[in-house]
Amino acid sequence: MTRDGNPGSKEGKQATMKSEGKLATIKGGVCAPKGFRASGLKCGIKNPDSPKLDLALIYSDHPSIGAAVFTQNQVKAAPVRLSANYIRSDQPRAIVVNSGNANACTGSVGMDHARKMAEATAKALKLRQRQVLVCSTGIIGVPMPIDRILPRIPDAAAALKADATDAAAAIMTSDTKPKTTAVRREIGGAEVRIGAIAKGAGMINPNMATMLCFVTTDAAIDPAELETATREAVDKSFNRITIDGDMSTNDTVIVLANHAAGNTPIRKGKAGSREFREALTEVMVRMAKKIVSDGERVTKLVEVIVKGARSSADAEKVARAVANSNLVKCSWNGNDPNWGRVLHAVGYSGARIKEETVDIYFNGLCAAKNGLVNHTPLAKLQQAVSRDRIRLCIDLHSGTGEYNIYTADLSPEYVLFNREEYAVSKLKG
Amino acid sequence: MTRDGNPGSKEGKQATMKSEGKLATIKGGVCAPKGFRASGLKCGIKNPDSPKLDLALIYSDHPSIGAAVFTQNQVKAAPVRLSANYIRSDQPRAIVVNSGNANACTGSVGMDHARKMAEATAKALKLRQRQVLVCSTGIIGVPMPIDRILPRIPDAAAALKADATDAAAAIMTSDTKPKTTAVRREIGGAEVRIGAIAKGAGMINPNMATMLCFVTTDAAIDPAELETATREAVDKSFNRITIDGDMSTNDTVIVLANHAAGNTPIRKGKAGSREFREALTEVMVRMAKKIVSDGERVTKLVEVIVKGARSSADAEKVARAVANSNLVKCSWNGNDPNWGRVLHAVGYSGARIKEETVDIYFNGLCAAKNGLVNHTPLAKLQQAVSRDRIRLCIDLHSGTGEYNIYTADLSPEYVLFNREEYAVSKLKG
Repeated sequence: MTRDGNPGSKEGKQATMKSEGKLATIKGGVCAPKGFRASGLKCGIKNPDSPKLDLALIYSDHPSIGAAVFTQNQVKAAPVRLSANYIRSDQPRAIVVNSGNANACTGSVGMDHARKMAEATAKALKLRQRQVLVCSTGIIGVPMPIDRILPRIPDAAAALKADATDAAAAIMTSDTKPKTTAVRREIGGAEVRIGAIAKGAGMINPNMATMLCFVTTDAAIDPAELETATREAVDKSFNRITIDGDMSTNDTVIVLANHAAGNTPIRKGKAGSREFREALTEVMVRMAKKIVSDGERVTKLVEVIVKGARSSADAEKVARAVANSNLVKCSWNGNDPNWGRVLHAVGYSGARIKEETVDIYFNGLCAAKNGLVNHTPLAKLQQAVSRDRIRLCIDLHSGTGEYNIYTADLSPEYVLFNREEYAVSKLKG
Repeated sequence: MTRDGNPGSKEGKQATMKSEGKLATIKGGVCAPKGFRASGLKCGIKNPDSPKLDLALIYSDHPSIGAAVFTQNQVKAAPVRLSANYIRSDQPRAIVVNSGNANACTGSVGMDHARKMAEATAKALKLRQRQVLVCSTGIIGVPMPIDRILPRIPDAAAALKADATDAAAAIMTSDTKPKTTAVRREIGGAEVRIGAIAKGAGMINPNMATMLCFVTTDAAIDPAELETATREAVDKSFNRITIDGDMSTNDTVIVLANHAAGNTPIRKGKAGSREFREALTEVMVRMAKKIVSDGERVTKLVEVIVKGARSSADAEKVARAVANSNLVKCSWNGNDPNWGRVLHAVGYSGARIKEETVDIYFNGLCAAKNGLVNHTPLAKLQQAVSRDRIRLCIDLHSGTGEYNIYTADLSPEYVLFNREEYAVSKLKG
């Protein structure tokens, strides 16, 4: 058992990474903060005979506020459009989530189904409909089996308890393990808690790469500050992971805050703001790294660190070009310290660079210096790239711009997994 | 044997494709136009014991002019920098090309080696050094075995003949077959010929994805018109193929024209200009398609056609997003008519689109209409996607912008091939 209570979690290894942060992990995921309960149960959305949980509910016993970041894909699933509308206009207190069907590319019928899920949840919890946020993940382009979902929503409400285990399991699709974390920190004279559950993206879902993360906190916080802190944390976490460059129709991060901790309310620029932002960012970075490193089909978690760029925008261009290059990702899968492919991606990134000042390091070992092969023994470089955690540092020596991003290798198994036939998926659904 | 004389060529199948064009294919590749000779021989660049040809020479017996398009990657191989300089300042008459080593990321030593190749070729052919263009393809970051190359250059000059077979073989790296074509067309009162040889890109070269194409013509043509025609043809051919989104350090297209056909010289806007541009474009489109479809690791040639975009720039964004999406490419490999992944790539392409007006067709069969699943039987769609040539048409119904691009599927074998260890490559080199 690890600190998170998830058998087989890689938390132990991740804890050694620099940006893992300094806050103590506590148990409970989204139920760690005071006044939050959750549940998860089975509707049989994908397959009535499967034992898999596929409906999750997260609920605050107290009035709460929310902030959210949704996919920037112009093709948005119905629940994304609904929740983006609801979160602007009211104080959300519940999130209802199903896995197995993304309710995307489903037209007006899909929007009607998303509304019905909010309506049923609101009725069961005695909330207004606009206080319920809706999320879906799974196959796209197929109508939701709404008649299997609606009757189970009252059961999900009745099953709410201070244990996020079932909810974390119910949002999984092809994830190999549930993803959960929670931290506590003294802020504004009280112990504030932040908890999260998430499901993964990219190569771990054949039917649409969706990333969902739900965060709860008992902090008392000003709505504008919660909004800013959420955007900042997403920018430093989920916006810095890339599996295959794709962006889903359903990606969603939602934060609920219910003021139950009793701290002095957190406001922009006031005491506690920095501490809360740091803690929220740490929680999201943890979840982002769990998402990248999950899945048998990923063999390596790679942090691409770009330094010395003319601007941070240039550093980001270089980091994304390298992290999304199939040739570079294949070389990592093959334990190949192929700095030439890295340099070639740097060259087409769009950032202004000088080939003759670029240095490339694998886990601190210099593979290329001034754009030329360095004299580090190849065996040592191979050893570095053979690890399941790689820090690839690219120093452009052209300025002070920096950026870092987390990504993964590209494996033959990724392709095998994602070539699974639509027909097969549909039959399963 | 096919029309090109290449055993096993897919030319026969390609001839059925719309943009294959209408010109008759003639034999001879770059030696089909009058006054051009070529040769290919073995230096043992990668492996002295291999029988593979690895040095090619193309030469015009008559004074000639040239135009070229080089990689836009900021990391440029030494021969690219040298040739880009030479082609601006003089009348090129020869191209010397080696495979097995790209002479990229090799610093000032690499530039010295490229110059020495030009110098030796000029001496053997009694040309000025700046009349010789130099190209290299193969492993990067490793110094050229220049002492194996220079002594063989006089032999290559002595071996020049009106047969491009050896030259086409000598520029191959991981290509499974040589790529060559030639056409003839009446222009300006004479029969003008255009011939080409090429080597492939992307998934067919583990050590750096390089595309090279050499075109010869006996047309009499104004230098400015040759330049414009070359850029236009490249834009409609090599700029519209994408394997994995990577752009090589060595990509090069060179056209030599030697005026031997005796036609009325072709000038911009005058008689013959349109005919020549069409013919040159057809030659390059043929070579581009051969490059995409070559390789055991590619199972499908896919033409992505975008219509109805708000602008042609928007159409290009959509075409490139779809053509480079790993999830979409995996689905093609699995014979999966997964229109949802296509729509999702359309959504994040950056083009302005309306989900509810997007139609998607596989080989003329409608998979999605107005952003929703269409009622074409799944078995029929699967049959369409199972072919080794797919036309994927996306109609956005938002304007008149159009763009088309050629790409390929992503196979598990691509990853296996490209994860080959650097150490292994180096030992081979």
